[in-house]
Amino acid sequence: MGGPEIDHLITLLAKLPGMGPRSARRAALRMLQQPEQRMLPLAQALAAAAAAVRPCADCGNLDSRDPCSICADPRRDRSIICVVEGVGDLWALERAGVHHGLYHVLGGTLSALSGTRPEDLTITALLSRIEEGETREVILALGATVDGATTAHFLADQLRPTGVTVTRVGQGVPIGGALDVLDDGTLAAALRGRRSA
Amino acid sequence: MGGPEIDHLITLLAKLPGMGPRSARRAALRMLQQPEQRMLPLAQALAAAAAAVRPCADCGNLDSRDPCSICADPRRDRSIICVVEGVGDLWALERAGVHHGLYHVLGGTLSALSGTRPEDLTITALLSRIEEGETREVILALGATVDGATTAHFLADQLRPTGVTVTRVGQGVPIGGALDVLDDGTLAAALRGRRSA
Repeated sequence: MGGPEIDHLITLLAKLPGMGPRSARRAALRMLQQPEQRMLPLAQALAAAAAAVRPCADCGNLDSRDPCSICADPRRDRSIICVVEGVGDLWALERAGVHHGLYHVLGGTLSALSGTRPEDLTITALLSRIEEGETREVILALGATVDGATTAHFLADQLRPTGVTVTRVGQGVPIGGALDVLDDGTLAAALRGRRSA
Repeated sequence: MGGPEIDHLITLLAKLPGMGPRSARRAALRMLQQPEQRMLPLAQALAAAAAAVRPCADCGNLDSRDPCSICADPRRDRSIICVVEGVGDLWALERAGVHHGLYHVLGGTLSALSGTRPEDLTITALLSRIEEGETREVILALGATVDGATTAHFLADQLRPTGVTVTRVGQGVPIGGALDVLDDGTLAAALRGRRSA
Protein backbone atom coordinates (compact mmCIF):
# COMPACT_ATOMS: atom_id res chain seq x y z
CA MET A 1 0.00 0.00 0.00
CA GLY A 2 2.61 2.53 1.08
CA GLY A 3 5.86 0.66 0.76
CA PRO A 4 7.68 -1.93 2.89
CA GLU A 5 8.43 0.51 5.75
CA ILE A 6 4.72 1.01 6.49
CA ASP A 7 3.89 -2.71 6.18
CA HIS A 8 6.75 -3.65 8.51
CA LEU A 9 5.73 -1.01 11.05
CA ILE A 10 2.11 -2.19 11.06
CA THR A 11 3.24 -5.82 11.51
CA LEU A 12 5.30 -4.91 14.59
CA LEU A 13 2.61 -2.64 16.09
CA ALA A 14 -0.01 -5.39 15.64
CA LYS A 15 2.06 -7.68 17.90
CA LEU A 16 1.76 -5.34 20.90
CA PRO A 17 -0.58 -6.60 23.62
CA GLY A 18 -4.01 -5.10 23.12
CA MET A 19 -3.34 -4.20 19.48
CA GLY A 20 -4.48 -6.03 16.36
CA PRO A 21 -4.10 -5.40 12.63
CA ARG A 22 -6.89 -2.82 12.66
CA SER A 23 -5.63 -0.68 15.55
CA ALA A 24 -2.04 -1.10 14.30
CA ARG A 25 -3.06 0.47 10.97
CA ARG A 26 -4.82 3.32 12.77
CA ALA A 27 -1.82 3.91 15.02
CA ALA A 28 0.63 3.81 12.09
CA LEU A 29 -1.51 6.23 10.09
CA ARG A 30 -1.89 8.64 13.01
CA MET A 31 1.88 8.65 13.54
CA LEU A 32 2.71 8.91 9.83
CA GLN A 33 0.61 12.04 9.61
CA GLN A 34 2.72 13.69 12.32
CA PRO A 35 6.11 11.96 12.14
CA GLU A 36 8.03 14.66 14.01
CA GLN A 37 5.53 15.01 16.85
CA ARG A 38 4.43 11.39 17.27
CA MET A 39 6.71 8.92 15.52
CA LEU A 40 10.25 10.02 16.33
CA PRO A 41 9.49 10.64 20.04
CA LEU A 42 8.19 7.07 20.37
CA ALA A 43 11.19 5.68 18.45
CA GLN A 44 13.51 7.56 20.80
CA ALA A 45 11.60 6.52 23.94
CA LEU A 46 11.80 2.87 22.90
CA ALA A 47 15.52 3.08 22.17
CA ALA A 48 16.20 4.95 25.42
CA ALA A 49 14.25 2.44 27.51
CA ALA A 50 15.90 -0.52 25.78
CA ALA A 51 19.32 0.98 26.49
CA ALA A 52 18.68 2.02 30.09
CA VAL A 53 16.34 -0.52 31.67
CA ARG A 54 17.75 -3.67 33.27
CA PRO A 55 16.44 -6.20 35.79
CA CYS A 56 17.44 -5.25 39.35
CA ALA A 57 20.18 -7.64 40.53
CA ASP A 58 18.52 -7.82 43.95
CA CYS A 59 14.80 -8.20 43.32
CA GLY A 60 14.32 -8.62 39.54
CA ASN A 61 12.27 -5.41 39.09
CA LEU A 62 12.84 -3.64 35.76
CA ASP A 63 14.40 -0.22 36.25
CA SER A 64 16.93 2.16 34.75
CA ARG A 65 18.74 2.03 38.12
CA ASP A 66 20.40 -1.06 39.61
CA PRO A 67 19.64 -1.67 42.45
CA CYS A 68 16.16 -0.50 41.43
CA SER A 69 14.35 2.57 42.78
CA ILE A 70 12.48 0.41 45.28
CA CYS A 71 15.50 -1.53 46.62
CA ALA A 72 17.47 1.74 46.82
CA ASP A 73 14.69 3.66 48.61
CA PRO A 74 15.66 4.13 52.30
CA ARG A 75 11.99 4.67 53.24
CA ARG A 76 10.99 1.10 52.27
CA ASP A 77 10.60 -1.46 55.06
CA ARG A 78 13.50 -3.85 54.39
CA SER A 79 12.11 -6.48 56.79
CA ILE A 80 9.21 -7.48 54.49
CA ILE A 81 9.70 -9.07 51.07
CA CYS A 82 6.67 -9.51 48.82
CA VAL A 83 7.19 -12.38 46.36
CA VAL A 84 5.47 -11.90 42.98
CA GLU A 85 5.41 -13.93 39.80
CA GLY A 86 6.32 -11.11 37.42
CA VAL A 87 7.14 -7.42 37.14
CA GLY A 88 3.54 -6.70 36.07
CA ASP A 89 2.33 -7.87 39.50
CA LEU A 90 4.93 -5.65 41.18
CA TRP A 91 3.71 -2.67 39.14
CA ALA A 92 0.08 -3.43 40.08
CA LEU A 93 0.93 -3.52 43.81
CA GLU A 94 2.94 -0.30 43.52
CA ARG A 95 0.08 1.46 41.74
CA ALA A 96 -2.24 0.36 44.52
CA GLY A 97 0.31 1.67 47.06
CA VAL A 98 -0.48 -1.20 49.42
CA HIS A 99 3.01 -2.64 50.05
CA HIS A 100 5.78 -0.59 51.63
CA GLY A 101 8.44 -3.28 51.87
CA LEU A 102 10.66 -4.82 49.19
CA TYR A 103 9.80 -7.23 46.38
CA HIS A 104 11.18 -10.40 44.88
CA VAL A 105 10.27 -11.26 41.27
CA LEU A 106 10.15 -15.06 40.85
CA GLY A 107 10.13 -15.01 37.06
CA GLY A 108 7.16 -17.38 36.79
CA THR A 109 5.44 -20.15 38.71
CA LEU A 110 6.19 -23.85 38.96
CA SER A 111 4.25 -25.55 36.21
CA ALA A 112 4.12 -29.17 35.11
CA LEU A 113 2.43 -28.07 31.90
CA SER A 114 5.05 -25.56 30.75
CA GLY A 115 7.87 -27.51 32.45
CA THR A 116 8.90 -24.69 34.79
CA ARG A 117 11.04 -26.19 37.57
CA PRO A 118 12.33 -24.60 40.82
CA GLU A 119 15.75 -23.92 39.25
CA ASP A 120 14.02 -21.86 36.53
CA LEU A 121 12.78 -19.41 39.19
CA THR A 122 14.78 -17.03 41.37
CA ILE A 123 14.28 -19.13 44.52
CA THR A 124 18.02 -19.47 45.35
CA ALA A 125 18.39 -15.69 45.11
CA LEU A 126 15.40 -15.25 47.45
CA LEU A 127 16.97 -17.62 50.04
CA SER A 128 20.28 -15.73 49.75
CA ARG A 129 18.50 -12.42 50.44
CA ILE A 130 16.85 -13.93 53.52
CA GLU A 131 20.21 -15.29 54.74
CA GLU A 132 21.45 -11.71 54.92
CA GLY A 133 19.25 -11.49 58.01
CA GLU A 134 17.16 -8.32 57.50
CA THR A 135 13.97 -10.18 56.52
CA ARG A 136 11.22 -10.73 59.08
CA GLU A 137 8.28 -11.64 56.82
CA VAL A 138 7.84 -13.02 53.30
CA ILE A 139 4.44 -12.35 51.69
CA LEU A 140 3.62 -14.76 48.88
CA ALA A 141 1.55 -12.67 46.45
CA LEU A 142 0.98 -15.31 43.80
CA GLY A 143 -2.06 -15.82 41.60
CA ALA A 144 -4.97 -17.92 42.86
CA THR A 145 -4.30 -20.58 40.21
CA VAL A 146 -3.21 -24.22 40.50
CA ASP A 147 0.35 -23.25 39.56
CA GLY A 148 0.29 -20.27 41.92
CA ALA A 149 -0.87 -22.45 44.81
CA THR A 150 1.72 -25.15 44.00
CA THR A 151 4.46 -22.54 43.94
CA ALA A 152 3.28 -21.01 47.21
CA HIS A 153 3.34 -24.44 48.91
CA PHE A 154 6.80 -25.16 47.56
CA LEU A 155 8.14 -21.77 48.67
CA ALA A 156 6.60 -22.13 52.14
CA ASP A 157 8.47 -25.45 52.49
CA GLN A 158 11.73 -23.95 51.30
CA LEU A 159 11.40 -20.92 53.57
CA ARG A 160 10.46 -22.83 56.75
CA PRO A 161 14.11 -23.56 57.81
CA THR A 162 14.97 -19.84 57.61
CA GLY A 163 12.54 -19.08 60.47
CA VAL A 164 10.96 -16.03 58.76
CA THR A 165 7.19 -15.57 58.90
CA VAL A 166 5.62 -16.68 55.60
CA THR A 167 2.17 -15.35 54.69
CA ARG A 168 -0.05 -15.57 51.61
CA VAL A 169 -2.36 -12.91 50.21
CA GLY A 170 -6.01 -13.37 51.10
CA GLN A 171 -8.52 -14.82 48.63
CA GLY A 172 -12.22 -14.13 48.30
CA VAL A 173 -14.74 -11.70 46.86
CA PRO A 174 -13.06 -8.86 44.91
CA ILE A 175 -13.94 -5.42 46.30
CA GLY A 176 -16.88 -4.07 44.32
CA GLY A 177 -17.69 -7.58 43.10
CA ALA A 178 -21.13 -9.19 43.27
CA LEU A 179 -21.33 -12.74 44.62
CA ASP A 180 -23.63 -14.10 41.96
CA VAL A 181 -21.09 -13.68 39.16
CA LEU A 182 -18.21 -15.37 41.00
CA ASP A 183 -17.07 -18.91 40.27
CA ASP A 184 -17.43 -21.72 42.83
CA GLY A 185 -13.74 -21.72 43.72
CA THR A 186 -13.78 -18.03 44.65
CA LEU A 187 -16.98 -18.47 46.68
CA ALA A 188 -15.43 -21.42 48.55
CA ALA A 189 -12.26 -19.38 49.23
CA ALA A 190 -14.39 -16.47 50.44
CA LEU A 191 -16.25 -18.71 52.91
CA ARG A 192 -13.02 -20.38 54.12
CA GLY A 193 -11.48 -16.95 54.60
CA ARG A 194 -14.43 -15.55 56.60
CA ARG A 195 -13.69 -13.27 59.55
CA SER A 196 -15.84 -11.92 62.39
CA ALA A 197 -17.85 -8.93 61.18
CA MET B 1 8.10 2.72 39.31
CA GLY B 2 11.05 1.82 37.09
CA GLY B 3 12.58 5.17 36.29
CA PRO B 4 11.67 8.04 33.96
CA GLU B 5 12.43 6.07 30.76
CA ILE B 6 9.65 3.56 31.49
CA ASP B 7 7.14 6.24 32.57
CA HIS B 8 7.82 8.28 29.43
CA LEU B 9 7.48 5.23 27.19
CA ILE B 10 4.15 4.25 28.78
CA THR B 11 2.85 7.82 28.37
CA LEU B 12 3.64 7.79 24.64
CA LEU B 13 2.29 4.27 24.05
CA ALA B 14 -0.96 5.19 25.84
CA LYS B 15 -1.57 7.94 23.26
CA LEU B 16 -1.72 5.48 20.35
CA PRO B 17 -5.24 4.91 18.97
CA GLY B 18 -6.77 1.86 20.62
CA MET B 19 -4.33 1.92 23.53
CA GLY B 20 -4.91 3.20 27.05
CA PRO B 21 -2.80 3.33 30.21
CA ARG B 22 -3.47 -0.32 30.97
CA SER B 23 -2.55 -1.77 27.59
CA ALA B 24 0.38 0.67 27.35
CA ARG B 25 1.80 -0.76 30.57
CA ARG B 26 1.35 -4.31 29.30
CA ALA B 27 2.99 -3.44 25.97
CA ALA B 28 5.91 -1.67 27.68
CA LEU B 29 6.43 -4.59 30.05
CA ARG B 30 6.31 -7.16 27.25
CA MET B 31 8.88 -5.19 25.27
CA LEU B 32 11.12 -4.50 28.27
CA GLN B 33 11.35 -8.21 28.91
CA GLN B 34 12.72 -8.77 25.40
CA PRO B 35 14.36 -5.47 24.43
CA GLU B 36 16.51 -6.90 21.64
CA GLN B 37 13.72 -8.90 20.01
CA ARG B 38 10.78 -6.53 20.53
CA MET B 39 11.82 -3.05 21.53
CA LEU B 40 14.70 -2.13 19.24
CA PRO B 41 13.01 -3.52 16.09
CA LEU B 42 9.97 -1.30 16.74
CA ALA B 43 12.19 1.71 17.47
CA GLN B 44 14.01 1.13 14.19
CA ALA B 45 10.80 0.56 12.21
CA LEU B 46 9.36 3.83 13.53
CA ALA B 47 12.52 5.76 12.70
CA ALA B 48 12.75 4.18 9.23
CA ALA B 49 9.11 4.94 8.43
CA ALA B 50 9.41 8.51 9.71
CA ALA B 51 12.47 9.02 7.51
CA ALA B 52 11.14 7.37 4.36
CA VAL B 53 7.40 8.00 4.18
CA ARG B 54 6.08 11.20 2.58
CA PRO B 55 2.74 12.28 1.08
CA CYS B 56 2.61 11.57 -2.66
CA ALA B 57 2.86 14.88 -4.52
CA ASP B 58 0.17 13.72 -6.97
CA CYS B 59 -2.53 12.08 -4.87
CA GLY B 60 -1.62 12.62 -1.18
CA ASN B 61 -1.21 8.91 -0.36
CA LEU B 62 1.50 8.18 2.23
CA ASP B 63 4.33 6.12 0.75
CA SER B 64 8.08 5.72 0.81
CA ARG B 65 8.01 6.39 -2.96
CA ASP B 66 6.97 9.66 -4.60
CA PRO B 67 4.94 9.38 -6.80
CA CYS B 68 3.41 6.66 -4.63
CA SER B 69 3.20 2.95 -5.52
CA ILE B 70 -0.35 3.42 -6.78
CA CYS B 71 0.31 6.51 -8.95
CA ALA B 72 3.47 4.81 -10.32
CA ASP B 73 1.74 1.51 -11.09
CA PRO B 74 1.24 1.21 -14.89
CA ARG B 75 -1.55 -1.35 -14.35
CA ARG B 76 -3.85 1.17 -12.64
CA ASP B 77 -6.63 2.73 -14.70
CA ARG B 78 -5.53 6.38 -14.95
CA SER B 79 -8.92 7.50 -16.26
CA ILE B 80 -10.72 7.06 -12.90
CA ILE B 81 -9.86 9.07 -9.79
CA CYS B 82 -11.45 8.06 -6.49
CA VAL B 83 -11.64 11.04 -4.10
CA VAL B 84 -11.32 10.14 -0.41
CA GLU B 85 -11.22 12.18 2.77
CA GLY B 86 -8.06 10.64 4.20
CA VAL B 87 -5.34 8.05 3.69
CA GLY B 88 -7.17 5.65 6.02
CA ASP B 89 -10.06 5.53 3.53
CA LEU B 90 -7.60 4.88 0.69
CA TRP B 91 -6.08 1.99 2.66
CA ALA B 92 -9.55 0.53 3.34
CA LEU B 93 -10.46 0.62 -0.38
CA GLU B 94 -7.09 -0.95 -1.31
CA ARG B 95 -7.55 -3.75 1.24
CA ALA B 96 -10.98 -4.42 -0.25
CA GLY B 97 -9.38 -4.45 -3.73
CA VAL B 98 -12.45 -2.81 -5.23
CA HIS B 99 -10.91 0.21 -7.01
CA HIS B 100 -8.37 -0.18 -9.78
CA GLY B 101 -7.96 3.47 -10.72
CA LEU B 102 -6.09 6.29 -8.98
CA TYR B 103 -6.93 8.18 -5.79
CA HIS B 104 -7.03 11.74 -4.57
CA VAL B 105 -6.75 12.42 -0.84
CA LEU B 106 -8.73 15.56 0.05
CA GLY B 107 -7.23 15.97 3.50
CA GLY B 108 -10.60 16.39 5.23
CA THR B 109 -14.14 17.50 4.50
CA LEU B 110 -15.68 20.94 4.43
CA SER B 111 -16.96 21.64 7.92
CA ALA B 112 -18.58 24.72 9.38
CA LEU B 113 -17.98 23.28 12.86
CA SER B 114 -14.22 22.78 12.56
CA GLY B 115 -13.85 25.72 10.15
CA THR B 116 -12.48 23.64 7.25
CA ARG B 117 -12.82 25.69 4.05
CA PRO B 118 -12.29 24.70 0.39
CA GLU B 119 -8.77 26.16 0.40
CA ASP B 120 -7.83 23.85 3.30
CA LEU B 121 -8.48 20.82 1.08
CA THR B 122 -6.56 19.66 -2.01
CA ILE B 123 -9.33 20.74 -4.43
CA THR B 124 -7.08 22.92 -6.60
CA ALA B 125 -4.66 20.01 -7.01
CA LEU B 126 -7.57 17.75 -8.02
CA LEU B 127 -8.69 20.24 -10.67
CA SER B 128 -5.11 20.49 -11.97
CA ARG B 129 -4.91 16.69 -12.30
CA ILE B 130 -8.17 16.68 -14.27
CA GLU B 131 -6.91 19.49 -16.54
CA GLU B 132 -4.12 17.14 -17.63
CA GLY B 133 -6.88 15.37 -19.58
CA GLU B 134 -6.48 11.69 -18.68
CA THR B 135 -9.46 11.64 -16.29
CA ARG B 136 -12.78 10.28 -17.47
CA GLU B 137 -14.57 9.72 -14.14
CA VAL B 138 -14.26 11.07 -10.60
CA ILE B 139 -15.79 8.85 -7.88
CA LEU B 140 -16.59 10.77 -4.68
CA ALA B 141 -16.03 8.20 -1.90
CA LEU B 142 -16.82 10.44 1.04
CA GLY B 143 -18.47 9.48 4.31
CA ALA B 144 -22.27 9.46 4.58
CA THR B 145 -22.17 12.37 7.04
CA VAL B 146 -23.46 15.94 6.80
CA ASP B 147 -19.92 17.20 6.12
CA GLY B 148 -19.28 14.39 3.63
CA ALA B 149 -22.47 15.22 1.73
CA THR B 150 -21.69 18.97 1.79
CA THR B 151 -18.22 18.29 0.42
CA ALA B 152 -19.56 15.97 -2.29
CA HIS B 153 -22.06 18.65 -3.42
CA PHE B 154 -19.33 21.31 -3.48
CA LEU B 155 -16.95 19.07 -5.44
CA ALA B 156 -19.66 18.09 -7.93
CA ASP B 157 -20.22 21.83 -8.58
CA GLN B 158 -16.50 22.49 -8.99
CA LEU B 159 -16.02 19.52 -11.30
CA ARG B 160 -19.00 20.20 -13.58
CA PRO B 161 -17.12 22.67 -15.90
CA THR B 162 -14.40 20.05 -16.53
CA GLY B 163 -16.89 17.76 -18.22
CA VAL B 164 -15.74 14.58 -16.44
CA THR B 165 -18.35 12.14 -15.14
CA VAL B 166 -18.80 12.61 -11.37
CA THR B 167 -20.28 9.75 -9.33
CA ARG B 168 -20.83 9.11 -5.62
CA VAL B 169 -20.52 5.81 -3.78
CA GLY B 170 -23.83 4.08 -3.07
CA GLN B 171 -25.49 4.22 0.32
CA GLY B 172 -27.72 1.66 1.99
CA VAL B 173 -27.71 -1.54 4.00
CA PRO B 174 -24.16 -2.73 4.77
CA ILE B 175 -23.46 -6.25 3.44
CA GLY B 176 -24.14 -8.72 6.26
CA GLY B 177 -26.16 -6.10 8.12
CA ALA B 178 -29.68 -6.63 9.49
CA LEU B 179 -32.29 -3.98 8.73
CA ASP B 180 -33.69 -3.75 12.25
CA VAL B 181 -30.49 -2.34 13.74
CA LEU B 182 -29.99 0.38 11.11
CA ASP B 183 -30.77 4.03 11.74
CA ASP B 184 -33.58 5.85 9.91
CA GLY B 185 -31.19 7.74 7.61
CA THR B 186 -29.58 4.54 6.36
CA LEU B 187 -32.97 2.89 5.82
CA ALA B 188 -34.15 5.94 3.87
CA ALA B 189 -30.99 5.86 1.74
CA ALA B 190 -31.45 2.13 1.13
CA LEU B 191 -35.00 2.69 -0.13
CA ARG B 192 -34.01 5.67 -2.30
CA GLY B 193 -31.19 3.59 -3.77
CA ARG B 194 -33.38 0.56 -4.59
CA ARG B 195 -32.73 -1.34 -7.81
CA SER B 196 -34.68 -4.01 -9.70
CA ALA B 197 -34.07 -7.42 -8.15
